[in-house]
Amino acid sequence: MKPSIPKGTRDFSPLEMSRRNYIFDTIRSVFGLFGYRQIETPSMENLSTLMGKYGEEGDKLLFKIQNSGDYMSGLTDEELLSRNSLKLASKFCEKGLRYDLTVPFARFVVMHREELQFPFKRFQIQPVWRADRPQKGRYREFYQCDADVVGSDSLLYEIELIQMIDMVFSKFGVRVAIKLNNRKILAGIAEAIGQADKMVDITVAIDKLDKIGLDGVNAELAEKGLPQEAIDKLQPIIKLEGSNAQKLDVIAGVLEGSETGLKGVGECRFILDGAEKLGLKNELELDLTLARGLNYYTGAIFEVKALDVEIGSISGGGRYDNLTGIFGMPGVSGVGISFGADRIYDVLNQLDLYPKETAGGVKVLFLNLGQEESAFSMKLVTGLRRAGIAAELYPDEAKMKKQMSYANAGNVPYVAIVGSDELAQEKVTLKNMESGNQELIDAVNLKDYIK
Amino acid sequence: MKPSIPKGTRDFSPLEMSRRNYIFDTIRSVFGLFGYRQIETPSMENLSTLMGKYGEEGDKLLFKIQNSGDYMSGLTDEELLSRNSLKLASKFCEKGLRYDLTVPFARFVVMHREELQFPFKRFQIQPVWRADRPQKGRYREFYQCDADVVGSDSLLYEIELIQMIDMVFSKFGVRVAIKLNNRKILAGIAEAIGQADKMVDITVAIDKLDKIGLDGVNAELAEKGLPQEAIDKLQPIIKLEGSNAQKLDVIAGVLEGSETGLKGVGECRFILDGAEKLGLKNELELDLTLARGLNYYTGAIFEVKALDVEIGSISGGGRYDNLTGIFGMPGVSGVGISFGADRIYDVLNQLDLYPKETAGGVKVLFLNLGQEESAFSMKLVTGLRRAGIAAELYPDEAKMKKQMSYANAGNVPYVAIVGSDELAQEKVTLKNMESGNQELIDAVNLKDYIK
Repeated sequence: MKPSIPKGTRDFSPLEMSRRNYIFDTIRSVFGLFGYRQIETPSMENLSTLMGKYGEEGDKLLFKIQNSGDYMSGLTDEELLSRNSLKLASKFCEKGLRYDLTVPFARFVVMHREELQFPFKRFQIQPVWRADRPQKGRYREFYQCDADVVGSDSLLYEIELIQMIDMVFSKFGVRVAIKLNNRKILAGIAEAIGQADKMVDITVAIDKLDKIGLDGVNAELAEKGLPQEAIDKLQPIIKLEGSNAQKLDVIAGVLEGSETGLKGVGECRFILDGAEKLGLKNELELDLTLARGLNYYTGAIFEVKALDVEIGSISGGGRYDNLTGIFGMPGVSGVGISFGADRIYDVLNQLDLYPKETAGGVKVLFLNLGQEESAFSMKLVTGLRRAGIAAELYPDEAKMKKQMSYANAGNVPYVAIVGSDELAQEKVTLKNMESGNQELIDAVNLKDYIK
Repeated sequence: MKPSIPKGTRDFSPLEMSRRNYIFDTIRSVFGLFGYRQIETPSMENLSTLMGKYGEEGDKLLFKIQNSGDYMSGLTDEELLSRNSLKLASKFCEKGLRYDLTVPFARFVVMHREELQFPFKRFQIQPVWRADRPQKGRYREFYQCDADVVGSDSLLYEIELIQMIDMVFSKFGVRVAIKLNNRKILAGIAEAIGQADKMVDITVAIDKLDKIGLDGVNAELAEKGLPQEAIDKLQPIIKLEGSNAQKLDVIAGVLEGSETGLKGVGECRFILDGAEKLGLKNELELDLTLARGLNYYTGAIFEVKALDVEIGSISGGGRYDNLTGIFGMPGVSGVGISFGADRIYDVLNQLDLYPKETAGGVKVLFLNLGQEESAFSMKLVTGLRRAGIAAELYPDEAKMKKQMSYANAGNVPYVAIVGSDELAQEKVTLKNMESGNQELIDAVNLKDYIK
């Protein structure tokens, strides 16, 4: 029997884990600096919490957990013989695996509303599961890293989230463009071209500009029933270039008659001004073609592109006004962002941006050259560990070659040798594995030398 | 609709998360010092990997995931109408949720044997799921923290694991007794009383000594068919008292005729001597009644009891000789321990041993006293964050009482006040929330003052 794992899932090796931990720890530390605090929700939610929140397609992509015990009782012969997989799943299963972190967060806020202090700033780093067809870069189990604040409509939070994005990618050493737009502007544009009811179609089409180009977008708009006149009016907006301020001036003119649209322009101005005054390391660009797929956004929307790697967006988010409404708590405004850990991992891999520490395990490996020698070595190893230096002793008196290949596989920076000579003098021969240099050191000085 | 979560699962609030992170981070840091490196395995495994590994009862406690798509096709009418839940589950489901970290680790080792360097030291901190009846302190989703080394039978690893336990609980400030025994001694005892084939029954009975007392153990032994003579011979062993060395001397006498038993005694001597020479902060006690439930142990076994809280064992483990055999890779010896995060959490709660830092969020909250004031405050907040100090600004010009109650709920140590006077002088009034003292500080000095 050859063991395997379910398709679309992954094992993570020690090297992959230290790289992933570096990513998660960096993001976590930035979230913490900005006052976001971590929560966790269960991997399983009631299906009643999850179903209907991700569209019909989403419902199909939920992993459902079979009820324990006698899950088949109470079903009629007709029901069973119908072989209606989807309908019977709702009888066989009451629970499903988390599909994203947003719906469980909304559920959390509603369930714990009495204990929470608003505005409530939370972050969450947990895996989610989707029964999607696995393909390159798309997994059935993957991590999301979300930060959201709910219970305030202050635009200072939009600025803060942009600063957070800027700080995270600066820490990684990845150059990015942070793109900003506003759903109210998109609504205003739909209004201004006389197609207010087509706002979603327009948004969805424009969102594809990167993928299908301008002609493709226009074709899709026509297909969705937009008259040529309206499409013509859209062209200067889609093609708009210039500084953020110039773009805002032009679009403010176009949206003169739309209260919503002008509100969006005002919000963008406040956010862009605020963020720029505080100083960003990365470029912040108003992109009127940015739309974001999700329907629940109502204000500012963000997306982040890596500048030096060809890859989709590596972070994104926006303002929503009624996420908790589905659970009976309307009128709670919130704004949030999500970091795509798997794509960031790919970017850091491609640019080789991991710090050296992520490569290896212990700092010192002691070779095992005999029983007395290893007893003495264990004392030194124990002392190093108590001083906060990761160290280990090879467990048996194996051949030197085998012990050295263990050291090499572990990327150990120092190998410590205690043979009979060293033992007699209470010294250690320390080999620097990078330079190849060897030094004889008093055992008592080992800690300080390595520190 | 009132949202809820599945029974036996939990949401973790920010305070609970920072306490749990403190526990996990402490354990993780100690694992790292000893050269154990982290891996992660998927939440779902193929049911063929999991089934039959935890006994019949365990198979029932596995959470099974319904196949996506048309999972009902290919089943005959008879099969469906049989309503045989367990049998049909194996048709409806190919995957299940991880039940522990041990079987997935064995599967990992076998699958990646070509890439791994042995001895392979790994740790793993991930949730596991069991469809158990939920009750106080027993959850359907909970974390395990395991460290194991496979591919070596060196007893130095037993010593190392004991040191690791000692260091973890010293860092927590929890006084513990580390109990040690050896399955070879238990086998030897069974042999010595002429009941070698009853070794498992004897082990299982003795394991209950704490719960059912000596009379209970003897009754169970009789029930399992042990003759009175054998039970009589067991009594001095079960009741054995004295120092570790004294106990070993007595038991060595009892086991004179048993090669296995004497090997166990020798192993214990080596481990106890080695650990004591290196110096432990906690007591290490040879306990011949320690048995551990799991069948796969073959050598040393450990268990840890908190001394100042009434609670079951909070850590345990042992040596096994053939964990990967079930996946077709025999003869790989390993030894490992597992920390019970939920129980440790309860112990630290009861003894109130959390460091102060786990209580709160940001270090400084700026009150929001107007638009200009808050623009200036945002600059200071940005500067603090860049200097690694967690800080935030209240998002709106809300009533002072509301802003202060936000500060109190967040356990903020400092509140910063920038009103029009402070703004004019580029100063900040900083209130120490513990002492109640206020000081007027130059804005440029804020960072250093707080550091």
